[in-house]
Amino acid sequence: MSNSPADSALVRACRGLEVPRTPVWFMRQAGRSLPEYRKIRAGVGMLESCRRPDLVTEITLQPVRRHDVDAAILFSDIVVPLAAAGIDLDIVAGTGPVVAEPIRTAADVARVRPLTPADVDYVAEAVRLLLPELGATPLIGFAGAPFTLASYLIEGGPSRTYLKTKAMMYGEPQLWHDLLSRLADITLTFLRVQVAAGVSAVQLFDSWAGALSEADYREFVMPHSARVLSGLESAGVPRIHFGVGTAVLLEAMGEAGADVVGVDWRTPMDRAAAIVGPGHSLQGNLDPAILFAPWEVVEREARRVLEQGRAARGHVFNLGHGVMPETDPGVLTRLVELIHSV
Amino acid sequence: MSNSPADSALVRACRGLEVPRTPVWFMRQAGRSLPEYRKIRAGVGMLESCRRPDLVTEITLQPVRRHDVDAAILFSDIVVPLAAAGIDLDIVAGTGPVVAEPIRTAADVARVRPLTPADVDYVAEAVRLLLPELGATPLIGFAGAPFTLASYLIEGGPSRTYLKTKAMMYGEPQLWHDLLSRLADITLTFLRVQVAAGVSAVQLFDSWAGALSEADYREFVMPHSARVLSGLESAGVPRIHFGVGTAVLLEAMGEAGADVVGVDWRTPMDRAAAIVGPGHSLQGNLDPAILFAPWEVVEREARRVLEQGRAARGHVFNLGHGVMPETDPGVLTRLVELIHSV
Repeated sequence: MSNSPADSALVRACRGLEVPRTPVWFMRQAGRSLPEYRKIRAGVGMLESCRRPDLVTEITLQPVRRHDVDAAILFSDIVVPLAAAGIDLDIVAGTGPVVAEPIRTAADVARVRPLTPADVDYVAEAVRLLLPELGATPLIGFAGAPFTLASYLIEGGPSRTYLKTKAMMYGEPQLWHDLLSRLADITLTFLRVQVAAGVSAVQLFDSWAGALSEADYREFVMPHSARVLSGLESAGVPRIHFGVGTAVLLEAMGEAGADVVGVDWRTPMDRAAAIVGPGHSLQGNLDPAILFAPWEVVEREARRVLEQGRAARGHVFNLGHGVMPETDPGVLTRLVELIHSV
Repeated sequence: MSNSPADSALVRACRGLEVPRTPVWFMRQAGRSLPEYRKIRAGVGMLESCRRPDLVTEITLQPVRRHDVDAAILFSDIVVPLAAAGIDLDIVAGTGPVVAEPIRTAADVARVRPLTPADVDYVAEAVRLLLPELGATPLIGFAGAPFTLASYLIEGGPSRTYLKTKAMMYGEPQLWHDLLSRLADITLTFLRVQVAAGVSAVQLFDSWAGALSEADYREFVMPHSARVLSGLESAGVPRIHFGVGTAVLLEAMGEAGADVVGVDWRTPMDRAAAIVGPGHSLQGNLDPAILFAPWEVVEREARRVLEQGRAARGHVFNLGHGVMPETDPGVLTRLVELIHSV
């Protein structure tokens, strides 16, 4: 096995098949923790860097070269398809996405048009450039899920409270579903472009779904995420579904149509395995903050995660959220070595 | 019943005794949602307002007058006892607590000295002024729990990631326990002052404990919170214990020695009741964002919370987190009327 990305440890673990060793990659592995990333990004805006296939290729490869992880993840940002669909936004360093005209009225929602594959040809091009470089290492495509995208569009940027988002959700449910339906279309098109170009798996990031109760998630969010995930079923690549603070949502996030449920560090992997059941693999879930502790602690906690992960159908080792920019990349490399040695 | 605060619906619900109606109050009911609060606070710094018994009294009474809630909560801030114990900090509008010299080394921890009751005589004075004004309405005292206080002291202010906090917790557990032990002493003294002055209940706010897994909570946090809560046992007032995003911590937060476990909106009250068991009452848990929805939605969701709360030994109706500053106070008043009418 492992001579092709489609038969890699990552893809096999996602499917619950036997693996020679637990595959490991890190959310935000291609990012600010790496000096070579900071160097190549110097003076280049985030959106611009996501649109240049040469930069996407180099940045995506950096952590694979350095850490020997078992998967690459396409360098992009969850707002890239929104910008490509004509929404005026930027990614501001230190802040995050900033939307010029937040989406709050029916007229605003009507402005959200479908994405066409031609809008993101640079993404397909980057995937095509990456595949020969990666060889047997699988490339994970990704997109933001409709709820998380909606929260940025409605709030106008990052939020702690999601007040305006929830105000639309509770107050104008029809408008809400119209918006999320449009975002599901955009997300599905964006992921299909990546799958058609050759990615071996996809991750749907519903980063902020943890702001919701399970009942609200099932009513207002899950149908749209499920449409994205089921729309990829025939593509035959594993679908990973991840959010933060989703202790009460893990079952529903699996039911939405994921092959793999991503788990943050708050829920132990063995408990998560019992919640999602035998039909799903798990990804996670070392607390990214643990990487700032002495190595003995990192090793002890990583071994605990591996041990608890054995309760799952399949286990993709990862952090419980993204790599913090301040992380020592040497610790990440050592962690990969440890996971590979166990 | 209800002719004395000690026999009020709030205190009885906390103890799991029969009540004539479900008591209701709101976290941050004395705050920026009220125009009379914004008026009285104009030009007065937050810490100063917490140290002036006349202001504390007036601000604490404002929501009781306006909303007819079943409890007052002492106007203060969780960093008040830290400042009173000599830590140089301020509460900056729009930011939160800012600590001049964050606590990160053994020498820093050694600087954290005990609080003496005389350091917070203005708090005792405010309670004494409030009691005759409140009559049969109980006054809830409060303090921040050791973990949440530590996070502000170590980070130097509010945080999204608690990186430095967790770095000390994992990397220097002895120093961590030393710091939390000192903070538990301060918290216990601060609450004892309030109890001695006559509050009818206390709430221990571990606002940010939800950043932790249950295993870490039990190892690094619970012993210190338990010492605070057990140190109040002989005082005979109910102890409410609250944090946000604590779906995986509810059982442990009850075990720590709470009479009442506060629940955010993510966990339905009936599920929370099953988790904490028959030995604890519950407080919560309407999503504060629902107050921005049309009244029919507010009413439907409030009735759902009441219905699900019947599974608990006792139920204190509240929001699942604090009142947002942008909330229409008229909706809060109407919500109290609704709860009282059911």
